[in-house]
Amino acid sequence: MPGEHVMRAAMQEYIDAFRARDADRLIALFAQDAVVEDPVGSEPIQGVAAIAEFYRYAVQVVTGMSLAAPIRGSHANAAAMAFDIEMDVEGQWMKTGTIDVMEFDDDGKITQMRAYWGPSDASILDPG
Amino acid sequence: MPGEHVMRAAMQEYIDAFRARDADRLIALFAQDAVVEDPVGSEPIQGVAAIAEFYRYAVQVVTGMSLAAPIRGSHANAAAMAFDIEMDVEGQWMKTGTIDVMEFDDDGKITQMRAYWGPSDASILDPG
Repeated sequence: MPGEHVMRAAMQEYIDAFRARDADRLIALFAQDAVVEDPVGSEPIQGVAAIAEFYRYAVQVVTGMSLAAPIRGSHANAAAMAFDIEMDVEGQWMKTGTIDVMEFDDDGKITQMRAYWGPSDASILDPG
Repeated sequence: MPGEHVMRAAMQEYIDAFRARDADRLIALFAQDAVVEDPVGSEPIQGVAAIAEFYRYAVQVVTGMSLAAPIRGSHANAAAMAFDIEMDVEGQWMKTGTIDVMEFDDDGKITQMRAYWGPSDASILDPG
């Protein structure tokens, strides 16, 4: 089981890699057979190829990301963090807040990510 | 499936009831066969009788609780929130931050609560 410091470092790298818009750094955080459900309630995507496609798109539209509260560990192979996101989707500026829960394998790679955000957490930003 | 506003109201009531140290209000939020895993990685407690015992103790030791970021919904019957807790356990002051993920039934009752906080999230407060 990875230590809390390993999980916390991986989650901080997730934020930092997004801020650098570096999809390769994001993809490198995941195990080969990882599952991503973002948002929770959508069809999960599975496997590093599908996850790579997801993040290569995401880094193009995410223009800002910052932690809303400290990353939290657990007494198991899981950790969670609350953060805020700004996006530019084809000229439409949006922001949302999310809480991501991640599970890790013994090598510290993410095996599952679930993102808790709903329609009422997202808002359209007035370009004015 | 309960709406996001129903889940968000239940989670706010969880915070408010703790602040009022009112175990009955907390217990009333849970379904009869609910499961609580607090922290994640500990033995889950199941059923409203065990959950009642857990919260009757918790309201005695929790002296402060406040949201660290807005409550987040999802596109399913689940929501999550980050918050901070202060406790007085037999004269020992402690604080921790946690992220709680809750799942709900169609009546808006909590069926599962998982609390993400680890040893490195907790700290002892100097009584001086």
